[in-house]
Amino acid sequence: MRALVYGGPGIREWKEAPDPVLIDATDAIVGVDTTTICGTDLHILKGDVPEVTPGRILGHEAVGTIEAVGDAVTNFRPGDRVLVSCISACGRCRFCREGRYGQCRGGGGWVLGHTIDGTQAEYARIPFADTSLYKLPASVSDEEAVMLSDILPTSYEVGVLNGVVRPADVVAVVGAGPIGLAATLTARLFSPRHVITIDLADSRLELAKQFGADETVNSGRDDVVARIRALTDDLGADVVIEAVGIPETFELCTRLVRPGGRVANVGVHGKPASLALDKLWAADITITTGLVDTYSTPTLLQMVASGQLSAKPFATHHFELADIEKAYETFTNAGTEHALKVVLTK
Amino acid sequence: MRALVYGGPGIREWKEAPDPVLIDATDAIVGVDTTTICGTDLHILKGDVPEVTPGRILGHEAVGTIEAVGDAVTNFRPGDRVLVSCISACGRCRFCREGRYGQCRGGGGWVLGHTIDGTQAEYARIPFADTSLYKLPASVSDEEAVMLSDILPTSYEVGVLNGVVRPADVVAVVGAGPIGLAATLTARLFSPRHVITIDLADSRLELAKQFGADETVNSGRDDVVARIRALTDDLGADVVIEAVGIPETFELCTRLVRPGGRVANVGVHGKPASLALDKLWAADITITTGLVDTYSTPTLLQMVASGQLSAKPFATHHFELADIEKAYETFTNAGTEHALKVVLTK
Amino acid sequence: MRALVYGGPGIREWKEAPDPVLIDATDAIVGVDTTTICGTDLHILKGDVPEVTPGRILGHEAVGTIEAVGDAVTNFRPGDRVLVSCISACGRCRFCREGRYGQCRGGGGWVLGHTIDGTQAEYARIPFADTSLYKLPASVSDEEAVMLSDILPTSYEVGVLNGVVRPADVVAVVGAGPIGLAATLTARLFSPRHVITIDLADSRLELAKQFGADETVNSGRDDVVARIRALTDDLGADVVIEAVGIPETFELCTRLVRPGGRVANVGVHGKPASLALDKLWAADITITTGLVDTYSTPTLLQMVASGQLSAKPFATHHFELADIEKAYETFTNAGTEHALKVVLTK
Amino acid sequence: MRALVYGGPGIREWKEAPDPVLIDATDAIVGVDTTTICGTDLHILKGDVPEVTPGRILGHEAVGTIEAVGDAVTNFRPGDRVLVSCISACGRCRFCREGRYGQCRGGGGWVLGHTIDGTQAEYARIPFADTSLYKLPASVSDEEAVMLSDILPTSYEVGVLNGVVRPADVVAVVGAGPIGLAATLTARLFSPRHVITIDLADSRLELAKQFGADETVNSGRDDVVARIRALTDDLGADVVIEAVGIPETFELCTRLVRPGGRVANVGVHGKPASLALDKLWAADITITTGLVDTYSTPTLLQMVASGQLSAKPFATHHFELADIEKAYETFTNAGTEHALKVVLTK
Repeated sequence: MRALVYGGPGIREWKEAPDPVLIDATDAIVGVDTTTICGTDLHILKGDVPEVTPGRILGHEAVGTIEAVGDAVTNFRPGDRVLVSCISACGRCRFCREGRYGQCRGGGGWVLGHTIDGTQAEYARIPFADTSLYKLPASVSDEEAVMLSDILPTSYEVGVLNGVVRPADVVAVVGAGPIGLAATLTARLFSPRHVITIDLADSRLELAKQFGADETVNSGRDDVVARIRALTDDLGADVVIEAVGIPETFELCTRLVRPGGRVANVGVHGKPASLALDKLWAADITITTGLVDTYSTPTLLQMVASGQLSAKPFATHHFELADIEKAYETFTNAGTEHALKVVLTK
Repeated sequence: MRALVYGGPGIREWKEAPDPVLIDATDAIVGVDTTTICGTDLHILKGDVPEVTPGRILGHEAVGTIEAVGDAVTNFRPGDRVLVSCISACGRCRFCREGRYGQCRGGGGWVLGHTIDGTQAEYARIPFADTSLYKLPASVSDEEAVMLSDILPTSYEVGVLNGVVRPADVVAVVGAGPIGLAATLTARLFSPRHVITIDLADSRLELAKQFGADETVNSGRDDVVARIRALTDDLGADVVIEAVGIPETFELCTRLVRPGGRVANVGVHGKPASLALDKLWAADITITTGLVDTYSTPTLLQMVASGQLSAKPFATHHFELADIEKAYETFTNAGTEHALKVVLTK
Repeated sequence: MRALVYGGPGIREWKEAPDPVLIDATDAIVGVDTTTICGTDLHILKGDVPEVTPGRILGHEAVGTIEAVGDAVTNFRPGDRVLVSCISACGRCRFCREGRYGQCRGGGGWVLGHTIDGTQAEYARIPFADTSLYKLPASVSDEEAVMLSDILPTSYEVGVLNGVVRPADVVAVVGAGPIGLAATLTARLFSPRHVITIDLADSRLELAKQFGADETVNSGRDDVVARIRALTDDLGADVVIEAVGIPETFELCTRLVRPGGRVANVGVHGKPASLALDKLWAADITITTGLVDTYSTPTLLQMVASGQLSAKPFATHHFELADIEKAYETFTNAGTEHALKVVLTK
Repeated sequence: MRALVYGGPGIREWKEAPDPVLIDATDAIVGVDTTTICGTDLHILKGDVPEVTPGRILGHEAVGTIEAVGDAVTNFRPGDRVLVSCISACGRCRFCREGRYGQCRGGGGWVLGHTIDGTQAEYARIPFADTSLYKLPASVSDEEAVMLSDILPTSYEVGVLNGVVRPADVVAVVGAGPIGLAATLTARLFSPRHVITIDLADSRLELAKQFGADETVNSGRDDVVARIRALTDDLGADVVIEAVGIPETFELCTRLVRPGGRVANVGVHGKPASLALDKLWAADITITTGLVDTYSTPTLLQMVASGQLSAKPFATHHFELADIEKAYETFTNAGTEHALKVVLTK
């Protein structure tokens, strides 16, 4: 088969690779119908994720068709159309028993395109198929479904649910990339009074409005703290969601939150940030971090199927799978290309 | 009357001051029978708390007797023996309605010995008496009760309850001063498997054992991270309570906590700390900060009254109220004096 | 002044009554601009509520203008336009401290038009004004605001929040009177997948659709259990809200709920019901009962003000206050009159 | 092998039965070292559980040694000493993903000795071994461990955790059989102020004191409601745990609970009970039912291993496995025999 293979920092190639085979009784082989590229893949290509070694097939998002299943797989059979979750769950370890699949100690967690070969390929081996794949109803298209591999559950669980958004809340989302926009969209499920999305790019802020932000702030131009305080009787936002991953944006979040409020970090950070405990020690704030667990995937899938959530607008660019190198170009220049997610189809 | 008056950084004096009088209909005047000194009072004397201006009577902890009440006070009358809470609660603002009395926006919060005169005096005016004082049963002595003004609810609410200690948990308490010891004691209410208390002073660690720690670590000598990992199958502690208030100890807490665990900050910080988001962004951790709300005071009082909690051992040194300057000397040198709380009695 | 006075079972009269006066320092006198009639008032008139004695002025819902306040009232002054909550809160007792104002042991709870004179009058004395009244923004009309006295917080707190409605849930609301419709409306705030409202009257079910039900079932005609099971993969509803108050409807609720689901009783019951523990003991269900606490009133008020919640459609009939006897006629025959709430204006 | 075989109502026999064999890849065959008899087994023998058909091997509690495992079993291998949980968990269905293993829709739940052959035998086939067995540390004896198959997690999860026992609570446990005593014991983990255990038999009440009750009431002789009210300032108990399973005891629970309190039903009921909604509709109470999920088994096991929980005193009578018919006699007459749990050892 052909696959997108990591060759070390800066090097990727769409090339021939051995077909994956069943290794464990709980494995499935999935024929990839649709996949996409994640910001994390770009980090890997920069050499920021040293666990990924040359020769690795990248990608942890996909919609596909079951080709073969191991002896212990009971939920799926060849021909089933499935969503591949970015998180694999052994279903047996202490963390999986608590629904914290992202922290799986039994061989799962984020492994696809990371410590084992991933989904940017014609075929992929998915471990723990029964607890890591989801059957797709016909009413959900591939391009909608692939948003459920990672960005929708990540923004919903790690941002909106960890942030505990409640009716009438003021929610600030810092960052209007795909994750920030998905947080903007899914925060709406709890009927906040205001969702304010913050970014440096006006084009992204325009998008944020389409995804449900009723206020936007360009933090390069406007005083975000003042804007939030004006909307909140000088208190600050009830919930602040970090969706960038740099010290400055995290620190901004802690200035935006009200006493008693919550900061939910979703961003992938490469450096420590400063935490202003001198100002915050008495402020009753809660800060959470997290890797997605995908416990919400069935719920989100149901809402996409019923039309409650619109996943389509994330798919801004389409390519054939064989053109994945072009897709990487486009996604690498997401800002100038006005790209959110690039959808690759067989 | 006589009172301990702040005279600016480094200056305090036990001297004549005007008797307090009823100002608002919700006020009470309390004759102070017993009071104590808090670490925060030392911070004020260093000049670290600029809202405290010269002339202020210090102190926010006391047991006393009602002398007079305003027209709107219905729960108390002269002669009642009462606990003075370190937090005053207007009972009407948004935060008081949520039980977040520490964040009161209606004139309460931490005001005693801070923005209004406090309890290190023969008499004190207590605002919002109905929602800020607690009637004391005869079975609870003054020296036990005064521990309920601040250190017991602070360590219990901001440390143990924010940390969500559960049966069989491993709990690490960083700092074995009065707050850390009170956290050690009250964490036991939830039947953790291990409470490990950490400090630099062996004498404090000895005390920690008496307050319920079943393990102690001298962090100046031993590798705390290694010790906690050895006890937790290499995962880290379920709950870590910060009870010191400097960057190093907070940062240690974030290294001690397991994936999915909680860090509850109780320490009063004067500087920002570093938050290793590069290591923690995917670790599902929760960090909380907080000022005590004293919502737990009735519960804790009941447990002291019933003997479930032993508050007496905190009272290591006793003075007459008029000797408060000597008491300040002792408390300032708590380490060499082996002092936890100094109890001042009329 | 004139007031609607209870004269014993079956007897009510709009007649002269003494003007209310300030009794306690925490009282306010409110000039009633708008009031309404509650189903509970009809129960009282049937003699079902024996604590209500002849001579009592009825009514526990109103919007009005402050005429006078006691010395201890700090949040309001004459001329303020206020919402009168059906629940008065002393703000000091153990239950008020927990936000359970409905259970107030300090002289509050449901007292208006029950154990003290109420709001169906030109003036009313409101005890504990600071914790029982809410200032109204100009953007909220009287007829919208009066729905916040009782029906909106009751259905939201006791139905939707006790029922813990979550995104993608299937919610069944049994009863399409004002409370059931308000539960239908406010359940939507949590983005359930389906809200199914159940009643015997098709006209009410039509209304339910306008209030947000996407399915309705006439339980006199259709098999409700079968309909719910068909929508839920044969499991049952995630949340069932009882909004009628008779044994049959409560028992229906326990047949509609899925394993692991919740039944939130809002209905006022006059008789015990049967609880099929033989079928339910292993089903992991949760049943809640409750009197409204009105802790959600500020939140709901904000959502009415911002247009997130539409309170107007509850106001189906309008009368002058002096015509309250006619209004009682209409409300007593709510079914044939197609009445939800009758609004009485000065 | 030999096994205790159900022969229809009233009929049981220790007789030859075919050795169990591996059927599914996720199965394990366990050699039974220790088992016990549950009250439910007596119900089955009365014919109360029609899903149990003649020929079925009874029993759902055991400690044993792995004999063989299917291809998909990764956590265990022959020779491992294991706890057999009364609940089998497929680990894949919607309910297992939520930790509600008792409600498993994938072939698990309570199946042992119910819909498939059980553990009162020399060998047993355990489905879904990886998610239904627990490795035992050497420090936990068989007779302690077998209490973790059912009674300890049942009383803890369905009684104490569903009841949400908190420090300083007053907890009433209705019924002092093995489940009531285990609830009495495990309620202590949350430091309630009082645990009051209620039964008709003084001998059981004596035992309750040994298991941690600090008050006991003989409900045949004393006025339980009055006793609880005297202890609770006339309010009622914070948490009431039903551990009998008849209408009278459930109804008593609803009279014992305070406003805002919780009733956790653990008892297995054969008949509906009456629910006094006319008295309870406004009382803010929560009633829960449940089958054990065994999500707490690892926690409880850790606490038994560390000595925090003492499981031994439940084992009042000991028999050889081959003498199981005698053990049934004893357990059937538990009252006169002063038996709690009978332990059967190979």
